Amino acid sequence: MRVAVIGATGYSGIELLRILTQHPEVSLEYLTSDSYVGKKASEVYPHLKRVVDEVLRPVDPDAIAAAAELTFIGLPAGLSTALVPELLARGCKVIDIGGDYRLPGELYKQWYGKEPGPADVQGQAVYGLPETSRDRIRGANWITNPGCFPTAANLALLPLLAHRLIDPKSIIIDAKSGVSGAGRGANLGTHFSEVNENFKAYKVGTHQHTPEIEQCLSQVAGELVTVTFTPHLAPMTRGILATVYASLTQMGAGATEALLALYDDFYRKHPFVRVRPIGNLPMTKEVAGSNYCDIGLQVDTRTGRVVVVSVIDNVVKGAAGQAIQNMNLMSGFPETMGLTLSPLYP
Amino acid sequence: MRVAVIGATGYSGIELLRILTQHPEVSLEYLTSDSYVGKKASEVYPHLKRVVDEVLRPVDPDAIAAAAELTFIGLPAGLSTALVPELLARGCKVIDIGGDYRLPGELYKQWYGKEPGPADVQGQAVYGLPETSRDRIRGANWITNPGCFPTAANLALLPLLAHRLIDPKSIIIDAKSGVSGAGRGANLGTHFSEVNENFKAYKVGTHQHTPEIEQCLSQVAGELVTVTFTPHLAPMTRGILATVYASLTQMGAGATEALLALYDDFYRKHPFVRVRPIGNLPMTKEVAGSNYCDIGLQVDTRTGRVVVVSVIDNVVKGAAGQAIQNMNLMSGFPETMGLTLSPLYP
Amino acid sequence: MRVAVIGATGYSGIELLRILTQHPEVSLEYLTSDSYVGKKASEVYPHLKRVVDEVLRPVDPDAIAAAAELTFIGLPAGLSTALVPELLARGCKVIDIGGDYRLPGELYKQWYGKEPGPADVQGQAVYGLPETSRDRIRGANWITNPGCFPTAANLALLPLLAHRLIDPKSIIIDAKSGVSGAGRGANLGTHFSEVNENFKAYKVGTHQHTPEIEQCLSQVAGELVTVTFTPHLAPMTRGILATVYASLTQMGAGATEALLALYDDFYRKHPFVRVRPIGNLPMTKEVAGSNYCDIGLQVDTRTGRVVVVSVIDNVVKGAAGQAIQNMNLMSGFPETMGLTLSPLYP
Amino acid sequence: MRVAVIGATGYSGIELLRILTQHPEVSLEYLTSDSYVGKKASEVYPHLKRVVDEVLRPVDPDAIAAAAELTFIGLPAGLSTALVPELLARGCKVIDIGGDYRLPGELYKQWYGKEPGPADVQGQAVYGLPETSRDRIRGANWITNPGCFPTAANLALLPLLAHRLIDPKSIIIDAKSGVSGAGRGANLGTHFSEVNENFKAYKVGTHQHTPEIEQCLSQVAGELVTVTFTPHLAPMTRGILATVYASLTQMGAGATEALLALYDDFYRKHPFVRVRPIGNLPMTKEVAGSNYCDIGLQVDTRTGRVVVVSVIDNVVKGAAGQAIQNMNLMSGFPETMGLTLSPLYP
Repeated sequence: MRVAVIGATGYSGIELLRILTQHPEVSLEYLTSDSYVGKKASEVYPHLKRVVDEVLRPVDPDAIAAAAELTFIGLPAGLSTALVPELLARGCKVIDIGGDYRLPGELYKQWYGKEPGPADVQGQAVYGLPETSRDRIRGANWITNPGCFPTAANLALLPLLAHRLIDPKSIIIDAKSGVSGAGRGANLGTHFSEVNENFKAYKVGTHQHTPEIEQCLSQVAGELVTVTFTPHLAPMTRGILATVYASLTQMGAGATEALLALYDDFYRKHPFVRVRPIGNLPMTKEVAGSNYCDIGLQVDTRTGRVVVVSVIDNVVKGAAGQAIQNMNLMSGFPETMGLTLSPLYP
Repeated sequence: MRVAVIGATGYSGIELLRILTQHPEVSLEYLTSDSYVGKKASEVYPHLKRVVDEVLRPVDPDAIAAAAELTFIGLPAGLSTALVPELLARGCKVIDIGGDYRLPGELYKQWYGKEPGPADVQGQAVYGLPETSRDRIRGANWITNPGCFPTAANLALLPLLAHRLIDPKSIIIDAKSGVSGAGRGANLGTHFSEVNENFKAYKVGTHQHTPEIEQCLSQVAGELVTVTFTPHLAPMTRGILATVYASLTQMGAGATEALLALYDDFYRKHPFVRVRPIGNLPMTKEVAGSNYCDIGLQVDTRTGRVVVVSVIDNVVKGAAGQAIQNMNLMSGFPETMGLTLSPLYP
Repeated sequence: MRVAVIGATGYSGIELLRILTQHPEVSLEYLTSDSYVGKKASEVYPHLKRVVDEVLRPVDPDAIAAAAELTFIGLPAGLSTALVPELLARGCKVIDIGGDYRLPGELYKQWYGKEPGPADVQGQAVYGLPETSRDRIRGANWITNPGCFPTAANLALLPLLAHRLIDPKSIIIDAKSGVSGAGRGANLGTHFSEVNENFKAYKVGTHQHTPEIEQCLSQVAGELVTVTFTPHLAPMTRGILATVYASLTQMGAGATEALLALYDDFYRKHPFVRVRPIGNLPMTKEVAGSNYCDIGLQVDTRTGRVVVVSVIDNVVKGAAGQAIQNMNLMSGFPETMGLTLSPLYP
Repeated sequence: MRVAVIGATGYSGIELLRILTQHPEVSLEYLTSDSYVGKKASEVYPHLKRVVDEVLRPVDPDAIAAAAELTFIGLPAGLSTALVPELLARGCKVIDIGGDYRLPGELYKQWYGKEPGPADVQGQAVYGLPETSRDRIRGANWITNPGCFPTAANLALLPLLAHRLIDPKSIIIDAKSGVSGAGRGANLGTHFSEVNENFKAYKVGTHQHTPEIEQCLSQVAGELVTVTFTPHLAPMTRGILATVYASLTQMGAGATEALLALYDDFYRKHPFVRVRPIGNLPMTKEVAGSNYCDIGLQVDTRTGRVVVVSVIDNVVKGAAGQAIQNMNLMSGFPETMGLTLSPLYP
């Protein structure tokens, strides 16, 4: 499959390159960059020497559609609204890692503060979370790839909501992310001396991933789900850990074991979700560099709440890896092709 | 004031030394260590050269009581149950930084899995959180110093409970700590390669600070408070950030401003609690090395919850600094004496 | 090829597992562990679930030789002296990642403070640095894999010594390593709170890799080379950067360009050594998780010295990756098979 | 003493504030900032609330000289060349933490690539390294404060050169710095994701601190000293460790002990230099937050070199702390006044 990567020098972009170069069915045909047109990818990123020596080119829909059957887009918010329709119109399949088409236009405008793209393009987008939408992804030409926080949070909650085991108004998501989630832009918020040996919360109650989480959970629950979502910045480069709290609607002896059995069953057919045994909670390092989402849980019998902990690598299962998983499904490749990467530990 | 430090080579111990050497009314008269008897403190810790060159001695209650009017104890759990009564019996004032006397005997046994000390000693202990108990501390001879997580969590919640603004059954405390909170013991859980670039939850629903938090909050609320408390380990050395969630019993326009005004008022007379203006949430680095607890909050109007964020340096306000604040109160010194340390930034 | 890994739960061991599971010609047949016999590798390391679920077994030379054609050994110093002869005697090929057979017996005793293994086994060992010994490795049954520091230091120096461009008595190697180089043992020296935000030198003039470096360099130089070698510990998990200083015996205009051209030429046929263009020096992150050694250099014309900077991932090119490179050569596989891993950035 | 701080919101500036607020003889009278005029220091840096609530003002030499007897300047390179003469002309004493006046005009132009200030102002500047120039500092009105790398490197070398024990052409300085040394400017080089888990060398042979080091060492040696100096960036916020190599001109049995005795003697009267006993080398964390420079050394008898390791906190002894030490000397205060800060450990 001939593939293009738009935004190849962002963190999602170089992670796509890292993984796609190992994919047996993919050839990289067109890489773009705003800042480095005309340079080789390996001149911008010396770590790519002998790995990706292709030249970076400008964004040109005609040239992209001529070169590639499928395009991955990894651009900052607001920059793919216009580009996606142009590529689709030229018959190129699209997987957009950014958030421009994940929400209905009105919600997008409200939470992102930007103008939405065309409603019909938005309406045709398939939300690319394989664990809820595998069949729709299989037939799709156009995927809006889930956000990093929604991936971690929703995989933690799906079994509970699908089985109606929790009060859908009781959900609190306390998420912690590494700094790479903020992209490569240099500002005080990503300055080493300001982040190292530091921990903070941000965008409390206002993060743009909130409605995306609620939209996905509401569909699974079959009723409106509203959540409190608080993102935090941890002094590390990669990884998201989401600690999710919800009130159980019923609870008996052995509730933790029972819920774990239910999670095991729910995720049996999903190759990238691994459920931990009782007493074992996942850490972010245990999925670093891989496409896995690991989940553990514990019932707090004193308060009737369940505490679910999920971890992902934000640039893999939270971005580039999940996009490739979607490409595999769209293209009829095995879902895990090119993605059987072991986590890098320690 | 002649002072002894038991456990002077633990992390709480060396932090006591750091601060006490700057205190104008204190002389260090007796330092103990299990592992390094006969050595100078500065031989064990070269950073203390010219700062604390005293020799480390064994734990000998007679000698301690002869040398010191007041003893700080910084020992692992279970090691001060027997020692405290011996010092008190000899007329020495005691501030125990460890957790052995913070809970009633039964609760201690249940959550710590250890035998409690004498009930009368436990019964006489004053819980040394100046923001709730300043007057009782002033007359006390014997203080059980609060834990690090309870200090951060309870200071975040006191105004809400004192004013009955939240449902006391709705409280969730999601706390993140640096590694120094685990002490200096070397094990896989504190190994650099296992902690760095990693984030994890631990002791979900079972951490021994849970009943201590509930005990303090219940007294302030005047009713039984039960909380869900989840500690996490962050890849940093110092600092705790607690994100606290609770359902507001009422809410109007401008709720965030109103609550901040209430916090400002509540903490006006407390020199070490700093309330942030609206839109500003504290980070752990902003209190590093200091005795401050900084607090910010945001109402999530969509869900009717308040999200309070508090930060402390776990070895200062969460341990040694608060102990010295208590010593100042017990001894009639100004509460801030020796503690006007600016945070170290960056 | 049927393969065994001795010490599969050490850091070199799990890195072997990570890479070997991607190798198209290898099957893992026998994994050993001292501490976890009977458990699955994925029970000890949850990140390995669905990656390596094999059961860990005790060290039993008969069983190993029956199961495997080639054995990797990743054990602490002193533990393979007896084991290697037993495996070789049973016809099993061996690659020892540890240092027990890298030096002549006398030197080993002097620098490691341990008893050497049999002299004939030591004498048959091929030193597994493909960039100096590819042909000897191709015919070998028994490889002693280079240390992490010697790999970084020697690759930085080979072209200079092979071309007699530097004074062999002028070499100073100032090397900086991540903490994973110290293994998984928990002690104060690997405690997060003691390593984070800290930098130190250690074993100045006495590190056991010193004679290994000199032995390799002396062979290439054709004369006795003595070096000053200072290792340092950096607050990071992976990576070695070696800054190497030497006095040039001659120097003309454009010396930096000339030396870089010479390095390019020297390493043209070596797939894992990448030479940087002028003005560009490598950083450890640019090789993280990969088998590359990246090299840059700059002539200090004011002092007549050349400063060479080389970087490796200490657990890949410095241990497991180089061992697999050696396996490929011994087995007639393409040298890069299973090792075309892109570095993980950021 | 009434004091002004120019550049109060840079990292040197806020460190001056942290320390000066504890100084018994200083009142902060005038703080400037380019970016935040009109705001309180504590609005820009919430950690300063209740510590420094003064308002930030523009740079106005008349107003500064009216308000303050002594001005500290902490500005990026090139910004104090014009300002210093204006302040001196108004009778205000000046301590410039920046590098604009440390070198003769020609050297400054060559290494900094900027126009030097007036030659007479440069000529009057006293280089503020108390360990070489205490007496000259005592009578001075105008101090150019040493750079961070020169402070660490030169303190490591002074005794050797003063006693003519090393070949002055053999000196190699391999220095490692935390990121705060690069200031608060946000760029790729200070981006957390690019620095964390990474180590690099930079400005090899071209760093502007090189001639400053050589100038100071040449004066002490009484002959021209040329050094190879390589700075590195370590993934930590604070701290410099310099590893210094030099060839001994003579060496006997017990050379390490003998040199340590000589260092002890040399630094006996210098309150902020601490020499380690044999076998003990300093780490950066052991001076964090303090004005100490700790030094250890080891003779490499095999090569006839001495390896000296020195550590400082780059923003204290390498900037703000040393500036205050100089202020104390200029003003007749005890040299250690306000500077008896214990290092913060861990």
